[in-house]
Amino acid sequence: MSQVDELQALVLANDEFYAAFATGDRDAMEALWATTAPVLCVHPGAPALHGRAAVMRSWQEILEDPPALVHSSPRASLVRGLGFVTCLEHVEQGTLAASNVFVWEDGRWKLVHHHSGALAGLDPEAEAPSGQLH
Amino acid sequence: MSQVDELQALVLANDEFYAAFATGDRDAMEALWATTAPVLCVHPGAPALHGRAAVMRSWQEILEDPPALVHSSPRASLVRGLGFVTCLEHVEQGTLAASNVFVWEDGRWKLVHHHSGALAGLDPEAEAPSGQLH
Repeated sequence: MSQVDELQALVLANDEFYAAFATGDRDAMEALWATTAPVLCVHPGAPALHGRAAVMRSWQEILEDPPALVHSSPRASLVRGLGFVTCLEHVEQGTLAASNVFVWEDGRWKLVHHHSGALAGLDPEAEAPSGQLH
Repeated sequence: MSQVDELQALVLANDEFYAAFATGDRDAMEALWATTAPVLCVHPGAPALHGRAAVMRSWQEILEDPPALVHSSPRASLVRGLGFVTCLEHVEQGTLAASNVFVWEDGRWKLVHHHSGALAGLDPEAEAPSGQLH
């Protein structure tokens, strides 16, 4: 597969992730995560989860009542054969920035990492984005 | 190098990242990021930055006035030869969850990705963590 095709497949895999997410499709979500590579996940406002059991349990809970969610601005890159996609997630309460990392497994891109955090600072009174926290 | 040694080196590289971060050491930060692999970064509350120029410019700005920051709970794993470390970041305003991804380059682990977001919800009135956003 050419690099352009790999990147297109990566954006499509990211689309499938958000389709499963927004529709609460647990089976699709299970199938979207890697089974041979270690997986981890950082949901908004929560510490990291490591391992497929913990990560998939979190998705089972989240998908019981999936959020109204659309994503935008996907941007994909390949790093040593892994696929990285960043995008924005839009939910009722606001917008989040997400990083999704994929490995090629069983002929398709599968998730090994999802990290999402709000586009907002720690200080709700602050007008500026919280870039200065870092 | 054994896998145990690789994981130990990964945690040490993560320590070095936070040492450069907290002390505002720009030269060390420049040296800690990969030069041959693509890099990306998601600072708290901000959209993703792609490419070494944009990412290093953001660190130059942040390190002009580095935060009082300590990290804790590092947890490292290897995924297809890349190193993933999650940890907590403690700053004056609160605690953040971070994901740091490294590649092996020039005989050491170098950063290709940093994503950090607050351990807090989008809704400042909410008492519960924002897990339900997802």
